[in-house]
Amino acid sequence: MRAVDLIRKKRDCGELSREEIDFLVSGYTGGEIPDYQMAAGLMAIWIRGLNRAEIAALTEVMLHSGEVLSHSEIPGKKVDKHSTESMENKTSLILAPIVAAGGLTVPMISGRGLGHTGGTLDKLEAIPGFNVNLSTAEFQRVLRECRMGLIGQTAEIAPADKKIYALRDVTSTVENVGLICASIMSKKLAEGIDALVLDVKTGSGAFMKKEEDSVRLAEVMVETGKRMGKKVVALITDMDQPLGNMIGNALEVVEVVDVLRGAGPQDLRELCLELAGWMLHLGGVAATVADGQQQSAQLISSGAALEKFRRMVELQGGDVRAIDDTKKLPQAKLSMPVKSATAGRVMAMQCEQIGTACVILGGGRERKEDSVDPAVGIVLHKRVGDRVDAGEPLVTIYYNDESKAQRARNLLEQSCEIGVAPPAKRPLVHRIIGETGDKH
Amino acid sequence: MRAVDLIRKKRDCGELSREEIDFLVSGYTGGEIPDYQMAAGLMAIWIRGLNRAEIAALTEVMLHSGEVLSHSEIPGKKVDKHSTESMENKTSLILAPIVAAGGLTVPMISGRGLGHTGGTLDKLEAIPGFNVNLSTAEFQRVLRECRMGLIGQTAEIAPADKKIYALRDVTSTVENVGLICASIMSKKLAEGIDALVLDVKTGSGAFMKKEEDSVRLAEVMVETGKRMGKKVVALITDMDQPLGNMIGNALEVVEVVDVLRGAGPQDLRELCLELAGWMLHLGGVAATVADGQQQSAQLISSGAALEKFRRMVELQGGDVRAIDDTKKLPQAKLSMPVKSATAGRVMAMQCEQIGTACVILGGGRERKEDSVDPAVGIVLHKRVGDRVDAGEPLVTIYYNDESKAQRARNLLEQSCEIGVAPPAKRPLVHRIIGETGDKH
Repeated sequence: MRAVDLIRKKRDCGELSREEIDFLVSGYTGGEIPDYQMAAGLMAIWIRGLNRAEIAALTEVMLHSGEVLSHSEIPGKKVDKHSTESMENKTSLILAPIVAAGGLTVPMISGRGLGHTGGTLDKLEAIPGFNVNLSTAEFQRVLRECRMGLIGQTAEIAPADKKIYALRDVTSTVENVGLICASIMSKKLAEGIDALVLDVKTGSGAFMKKEEDSVRLAEVMVETGKRMGKKVVALITDMDQPLGNMIGNALEVVEVVDVLRGAGPQDLRELCLELAGWMLHLGGVAATVADGQQQSAQLISSGAALEKFRRMVELQGGDVRAIDDTKKLPQAKLSMPVKSATAGRVMAMQCEQIGTACVILGGGRERKEDSVDPAVGIVLHKRVGDRVDAGEPLVTIYYNDESKAQRARNLLEQSCEIGVAPPAKRPLVHRIIGETGDKH
Repeated sequence: MRAVDLIRKKRDCGELSREEIDFLVSGYTGGEIPDYQMAAGLMAIWIRGLNRAEIAALTEVMLHSGEVLSHSEIPGKKVDKHSTESMENKTSLILAPIVAAGGLTVPMISGRGLGHTGGTLDKLEAIPGFNVNLSTAEFQRVLRECRMGLIGQTAEIAPADKKIYALRDVTSTVENVGLICASIMSKKLAEGIDALVLDVKTGSGAFMKKEEDSVRLAEVMVETGKRMGKKVVALITDMDQPLGNMIGNALEVVEVVDVLRGAGPQDLRELCLELAGWMLHLGGVAATVADGQQQSAQLISSGAALEKFRRMVELQGGDVRAIDDTKKLPQAKLSMPVKSATAGRVMAMQCEQIGTACVILGGGRERKEDSVDPAVGIVLHKRVGDRVDAGEPLVTIYYNDESKAQRARNLLEQSCEIGVAPPAKRPLVHRIIGETGDKH
């Protein structure tokens, strides 16, 4: 077998066999196939596409390129959630403690590469002392102690994905359903889970703008997971504006703790209850999704979920005083409001621009080697549909660098559209993919 | 400008501007854009295609990546010929002396990379002492002395093409009209020519199997050349069987000398007269193509063309005794016939298999670093349509290594198809592209 022939085959719309996909992925991961051949192959795949069998084969090959965890010594089901948008990863920090408090195990492993705004790992690292770089053995000890843990992708987990993703990023071969599916599912299945809830975003702020694209990605991921014997459901959820009110690493931890205390913004709480309901149901501790949602609400109001989060922070080396009093989280030195020029209704809020503004402030990475400022960020005072007066603050910028704040402000001024008529309200959950039998 | 954005643009079927093409090609040639980004870009170009304006821009940018020769001190027009098949390059060695003897200048520069059977340079190097590695100054001295010269592509000629071609070769991005056109035309236009005759092959043995593909390539090359103010004509010529009877480096020199002496195989002589006629006409020394053909026939029968060839060999350091007596060219130690198993008619001869058999014998390169054996090769005794008896030799293999000869023989046995009814005769020239006004 030669790489050049397999590239030609895909270029000419052929179907790659399991052995051929294995040859390419193993050869690339092992260093025998050079970057430039893989890059040409990825572009051929991006344009010609992969069918369901190819996607399943690619996912399996990437999964088995590294270690697949097993938590057989921990009783009960292991479940996880994955969101297609790094900007929405704050739900992970709320869901994991709810579901762990509900009796399931949540072994969350996050990559750093996907998306350039601060990821889950950056948010956790805003908590002083928190260590996301645990070994597999340390991770499993944390899971045994409190049924949840949150670590970074180790070198042992799906190394093929790590290498291929870095190449996709610089060769414009990211946004392809088959490649996205294999990347996400290989990492998630390597966690050793029994069930997975996928939060696939749709709307102006999402990676996938059109609902049909989000649905197609969801379908492919659900099918791929089911082929491997896992319970998988995907929720197509709305992303026409940011979820919750806070963007930034420490700020999002504040919001997470708020929700775990029974407060927090309504949309964030609602989506978390929905996703947690599904996780508890798929994990077999709730007979229906509605039951799961009710249990989740109780686990919040009883304080059990917050206690789980606190315990996990403690086990992973974090300072729990910053959870008990979130003012002890890193704080930006300066803040400034961005005010509305006119009176009216907020018609739209551009998630991408708001995310980029946060990156400019230092809250996310422009390049992989950049370090992240945990304190900076943006707080939204208005949501789509809200009334606003001229001169009233739309958002507040929290910053440590004046020139960065000015650049972020310019972007934020363009990111909120003010109009007259109230915009149509969009549902939080658009569709559910992969549902079987009675859930509600 | 960022490479990743330009790759995305082409991936999404966009048109690249001249500046964008320049950025990519200059960046890659200069080493700022890495192999893997260029590889992804080339695959996107291969699949999405380039329009006429993009092809013209790519050709110009590649042309100007290096030195563009000027022969203003030599009076008269400078013309050249290019064949799309390296297996057919023996015509170059016949055409150049005819046309130079006819009063035009032929500054031929050949690449080594295109095609893995022995190229023009390998054929010339079969003549003891012949030096294809002249500097630009030495090349121009040879041209002044005898109006023709034949050298290898120097580092100064279209370096962008050299680097891009090597990458295309290993990323399955070779067979694309726009990329082929830019590669060929950038090198040919760097020779400093006024007119160019293109010999674009079609048929089972050609790179382009379908006539419409050959026509499309021809049209694009003709248009690109004309945009740059050159006279360009393309002949779509037949390649359903090898041209002439000999394949191999020294063997082809024998055949070249045979034709220049007024003998040689009919098909080879006929195609050379056709192409030389066009070259003399485009160069302005023949009023019509028919005139040019007549002049060419006279330049052969008078011995003027052979004398030019002899002089060029001498000026480039070759031993002219090997031209005067071709038995002094390198000879293989051993030979064996490949006999027909059955009686009948030769229905087909597979050029690609015959070419590969020659490579196996050592007459061409499997890898760039391979050296070439000038003595080995294949002589055909039958042409398509000929009668053959059972046990009669179809071809003779000239070789120096028994095991290689056996491998070549197995391939050659499959390369000749014997049938009953005589196959339809195919014309030598199928079409002429780019002709304007009265030529015949």
